[in-house]
Amino acid sequence: MSELKIVDGGICAVKGVKAWGTKEGGHGLAFIAGEGNAAAVFTKNKIKAASVQVTREHISSGKLSAIIVNSGNANAFTGTEGLENARTMAKMAATALNIDSASVAVASTGIIGHQLDMDEIQNQFKSIAGKLDASKEASEHAANSILTTDLSKKEISIEVGKIHIGAIAKGAGMIEPNMGTMLAFIYTDAVLPQETLKRCLKQSTDKSFNMVVVDGDTSTNDMAILVATGACGAVDEAEFQSGLDFICTELAKMMAIDGEGATKLITAKVAGAKSDDDAKRAAKAIVRSNLVKCAVFGEDPNWGRIIAALGRSCAEIDPTKITLKIGDGEKEITFVEGGEAVLSASAEESKEIMAGKDVIIFLNLDIGTYEAVAWGCDLTYDYIKLNSNYLT
Amino acid sequence: MSELKIVDGGICAVKGVKAWGTKEGGHGLAFIAGEGNAAAVFTKNKIKAASVQVTREHISSGKLSAIIVNSGNANAFTGTEGLENARTMAKMAATALNIDSASVAVASTGIIGHQLDMDEIQNQFKSIAGKLDASKEASEHAANSILTTDLSKKEISIEVGKIHIGAIAKGAGMIEPNMGTMLAFIYTDAVLPQETLKRCLKQSTDKSFNMVVVDGDTSTNDMAILVATGACGAVDEAEFQSGLDFICTELAKMMAIDGEGATKLITAKVAGAKSDDDAKRAAKAIVRSNLVKCAVFGEDPNWGRIIAALGRSCAEIDPTKITLKIGDGEKEITFVEGGEAVLSASAEESKEIMAGKDVIIFLNLDIGTYEAVAWGCDLTYDYIKLNSNYLT
Repeated sequence: MSELKIVDGGICAVKGVKAWGTKEGGHGLAFIAGEGNAAAVFTKNKIKAASVQVTREHISSGKLSAIIVNSGNANAFTGTEGLENARTMAKMAATALNIDSASVAVASTGIIGHQLDMDEIQNQFKSIAGKLDASKEASEHAANSILTTDLSKKEISIEVGKIHIGAIAKGAGMIEPNMGTMLAFIYTDAVLPQETLKRCLKQSTDKSFNMVVVDGDTSTNDMAILVATGACGAVDEAEFQSGLDFICTELAKMMAIDGEGATKLITAKVAGAKSDDDAKRAAKAIVRSNLVKCAVFGEDPNWGRIIAALGRSCAEIDPTKITLKIGDGEKEITFVEGGEAVLSASAEESKEIMAGKDVIIFLNLDIGTYEAVAWGCDLTYDYIKLNSNYLT
Repeated sequence: MSELKIVDGGICAVKGVKAWGTKEGGHGLAFIAGEGNAAAVFTKNKIKAASVQVTREHISSGKLSAIIVNSGNANAFTGTEGLENARTMAKMAATALNIDSASVAVASTGIIGHQLDMDEIQNQFKSIAGKLDASKEASEHAANSILTTDLSKKEISIEVGKIHIGAIAKGAGMIEPNMGTMLAFIYTDAVLPQETLKRCLKQSTDKSFNMVVVDGDTSTNDMAILVATGACGAVDEAEFQSGLDFICTELAKMMAIDGEGATKLITAKVAGAKSDDDAKRAAKAIVRSNLVKCAVFGEDPNWGRIIAALGRSCAEIDPTKITLKIGDGEKEITFVEGGEAVLSASAEESKEIMAGKDVIIFLNLDIGTYEAVAWGCDLTYDYIKLNSNYLT
């Protein structure tokens, strides 16, 4: 296996990709050009934004040439006018690149139920279309322009052998399997057929984006797109998969720690489950629990809430076999062993283990061999503040 | 049908019921005597508190003579010692009444994973056992002693024809279908066979307790018990059912509005659903959404979040048919009609509709004839405060 090396450049670390973006006030626009085979995964929400509808149509050919993304307005539940506006966005991008508008993906994120201000989008597009560039800064501009309540841009790129994978993403609130106002645009310059891209993206998504919970509200707008420009030649599929896993997992963690109002990253590691589904259900139930999230915020080792969340997760368990530890990345404390509460640390030490930025919950169900990891964040005063006056 | 009349007295409005309770600091103990046919529903959480295990065993005979309830400690995930302690609680009650301990139900609520302080419980029991009484005050003492983070006691009683139904309940945090640290003890002096009690309790629970969401965390300890002393003679089943529905629905609403940190009662009324399950799923998804709960707290008519919650609820929908209104109990404003956003009110009026204690969300899916109502509360700074330092 070739070594996986983190490199600079985001999506522009990938040969054949150019990008730019702009953001004014709460409204941003990104434009990415990069031609190749493409695959995507979309929200499971039954209310699908106009962008989701248009992009599903356009990607059915198995190829994409460009992506246009606006932030600040979800263009969801906006009827035929919204659909028309999403198509107009695709046409803008197509005209600038002299390509077919059916090869352009459209993505949106922001408030639901409001029509886009198409004049503003036209003006923003005019200001960025001529700046498309393959530099590190170009990827940064694009990454920044798609953020909404995110505090920091989400961008990562790696080199695996002679090929690259680079991505930018957005996601802070409304993140939940599967999936949750998260947008991820991933490029590679490997030569890969569309079927492989599809399979690899599905597999990576299942253990990364679909294992992030911020608030349990699945959005109308989620999508992750993977495009292979093919500019750097062939790659071993297993090697590509592990590179893509890394990219998606890093983005998932960035989303969790940047959850609205979050101060801590919660990682729930479940082992010894009877099935893959059980492991995932258990891990997600823990990071989804408001009570666990509040306890982590308060650095309160109230492990009973973790056990209660596990119990209602639908995962098969044997209460007499459970082992539960909490760690901070350096040390860990055992709270339950073989189904019994153990006092292995003082109250002070127990509180201290939750004082850092990282709170890692280890749960061994000890009735099988399946494992899963889920990521989430604490529930804080700032989450309430951000979400109680979004409009005002 | 006999008229349903609200009367004083709580559980002691029911002939044949005596009660008392005490609370010191965070720890309370209630004792209720009342013999008869009995039915119960329990938490679906796979981790079941010792009290749940013991009460399930004891109620299998179809009869109960007494209930003993402690608050402040859930006696959950406490192994064989916990189970032994729950049995000891049943014995205490049995000895005092000179009955079989297998006819005593045990209930607990509070923190998970800690052993009960049996000395304290013994002492508390000694202080109340001799005070058992059939007065209004006796029911109040019992109702107050079972509260944890609840701000106000939950007690209600009615007269239907010549029979009575009275109940006390507990529930503030961790409330979620099905069910969620909620305890409800319901008595009637009607003559009713055990099978009827079972059927009626299940039916009432499905449209009341199971439709309340505070934080989506189902507890290890929930139970609702219904006992018929038979002291006042026969009753028509339909009449009893509608009385029990009323009792359970009122208790459910009391729990929702007393949700931890809550300032507003959210009522989600869904009509026009394709199935009963769909109607329930849709209504519950709305009151469960953290984003909707924050918007209600902030009096922010961000109706897109309601639509997004509906979309991810798994209920069948046709986005082009949805009608959405928000009301305050007096007036209402239409935000969506036939799938289209409508501006029927000014921004100020829209905000005002959410300014009261009651926020009622009406959703007509217009693809069927099924209806459901769910209750919840807003998500506030105080919820975080209460739950981030429960232990300290």
